[in-house]
Amino acid sequence: MSKVIIVTGAANSIGRTTCRQLMQAGHTVYVSSREMSGPIARGIEEAGSNPGQPGPDLRTIEFDVSSESSVTSAVETIIAENSRLDVVVHNARQVVYGPAETFTPEQLAELYDTNVLIAQRLNRAALPQLRKQGQGLLIWITSSSARGSSVPFLGACASTEAALDSLALSYAGELARWGVETTIIVPSALGPGHYVRSGRPQDTVRAEEYADGPTADVSEIALAGLARLSPKDTCPQDVASTVANVVNMPFGQRPLKVHFGPDDDGAAAVDAVADRARTELFRRIGLEDLLKPVLIR
Amino acid sequence: MSKVIIVTGAANSIGRTTCRQLMQAGHTVYVSSREMSGPIARGIEEAGSNPGQPGPDLRTIEFDVSSESSVTSAVETIIAENSRLDVVVHNARQVVYGPAETFTPEQLAELYDTNVLIAQRLNRAALPQLRKQGQGLLIWITSSSARGSSVPFLGACASTEAALDSLALSYAGELARWGVETTIIVPSALGPGHYVRSGRPQDTVRAEEYADGPTADVSEIALAGLARLSPKDTCPQDVASTVANVVNMPFGQRPLKVHFGPDDDGAAAVDAVADRARTELFRRIGLEDLLKPVLIR
Repeated sequence: MSKVIIVTGAANSIGRTTCRQLMQAGHTVYVSSREMSGPIARGIEEAGSNPGQPGPDLRTIEFDVSSESSVTSAVETIIAENSRLDVVVHNARQVVYGPAETFTPEQLAELYDTNVLIAQRLNRAALPQLRKQGQGLLIWITSSSARGSSVPFLGACASTEAALDSLALSYAGELARWGVETTIIVPSALGPGHYVRSGRPQDTVRAEEYADGPTADVSEIALAGLARLSPKDTCPQDVASTVANVVNMPFGQRPLKVHFGPDDDGAAAVDAVADRARTELFRRIGLEDLLKPVLIR
Repeated sequence: MSKVIIVTGAANSIGRTTCRQLMQAGHTVYVSSREMSGPIARGIEEAGSNPGQPGPDLRTIEFDVSSESSVTSAVETIIAENSRLDVVVHNARQVVYGPAETFTPEQLAELYDTNVLIAQRLNRAALPQLRKQGQGLLIWITSSSARGSSVPFLGACASTEAALDSLALSYAGELARWGVETTIIVPSALGPGHYVRSGRPQDTVRAEEYADGPTADVSEIALAGLARLSPKDTCPQDVASTVANVVNMPFGQRPLKVHFGPDDDGAAAVDAVADRARTELFRRIGLEDLLKPVLIR
């Protein structure tokens, strides 16, 4: 069945590929128009116009992810146009690279805003409708750095991913009885792209101290080590296909977490233990039912 | 040897008890004067004036934890007065309770500021000196909710603790070659105090929906379950004694993490797997030496 879906972070490679896949599967996909500058929009729409495929249904909508009222009014428009909203895909992401000490508090606050608060704004805009429907799906695209070992100089980023992963899990339990499902999709953070295409610290003086001091060769060793270990980034296509598969699954069968690629940073191993602990704790405090969402109408 | 120590969050029970213990052990302890209103200061200082104990050496210093320049100038004063700074204790903490959806983005940003950015400001003020000395110690007092299963309605808080824990671990590796050690102290988040003495969501309308809807009994069931499971909060005295013990340990012998109490939310079990994964990853990328700090002068 065709679903109404809103996606954040549509301008990054995972976001673009995900929008394309969801359109090809016949869904109605909404993205922020601010992210849809010419080449990006064309890249997404071209894929939908293949003969034999369902026609593209990518709809841009004006909203500013940094404003709660703007996000809320965009979601109201989507609901007015479709009488429903089925799926929210949290994919907005900023990546930075550098020693933790070299990021100003303002930079960390901005990173937290992009990687966590955009999701909070969209959740607060969308969830009243999803709860009213008694059915809905939140898909969170996070990163193995949320639970895996963070390699040096990716700590600022890993820290916000850990916050997002934790928040997603809390939402999962709190929304289960409202009929809202959760899937957290976890690509590996260890590909070289995380280093090359990323923001840099504002405090360049401090960054020089790390580059000249006893840590001078850390970045080079880490990069070489990671290149041996994880020569490729997670393929955006794999993430996109998983999103599309999860969207198409029947209610109640969607997995809480999906990991990708080799478990080099141990995220999948850590999550396996964490998931058992969560199940056990919820059982012991008498809230085992929150582990599985139920339809309420 | 007497050490020069700065402590944040001195006004909360763990902070007060920690300051007292560190003073009794003969250290010079600095706290923000904004936190030292009459009763709190007396509560800390009284303990130092026992006969036979070293005299109290609690020094208040004017700084605003929300301003990087204010924190920096406070640290400059401490260094001017003592010619050194040995230990930073990150203990500032705000706890909130309520469904994740009921917290405004502004509330989450404020929570992140208290629970994460205060530590970032203090680190940026203190670390140039600690790195220059080639020796220093960061103690992070976090919470088992950082890695353990978060019970319903503690998610907003758990999310910032996860961010702090992740950041602390990244700093640990990045500072090892600068002679700066890290100990992360993890009290259980499951005592009843976390629920009773905590901030509430700003969006009370949304909170009512959770209190009236299918989640109406979740808080009551969770509280009763936790009361059976974890009838007491972590004793601040235990945390304070651990801080004092860690401060007094010789360089190189301090543990990276210390957990307290029963592992009801699985934080210790999750951390055990995470620590093994971190060791293994650092070994494989050729940076195993970052797992243990070394003195550089």
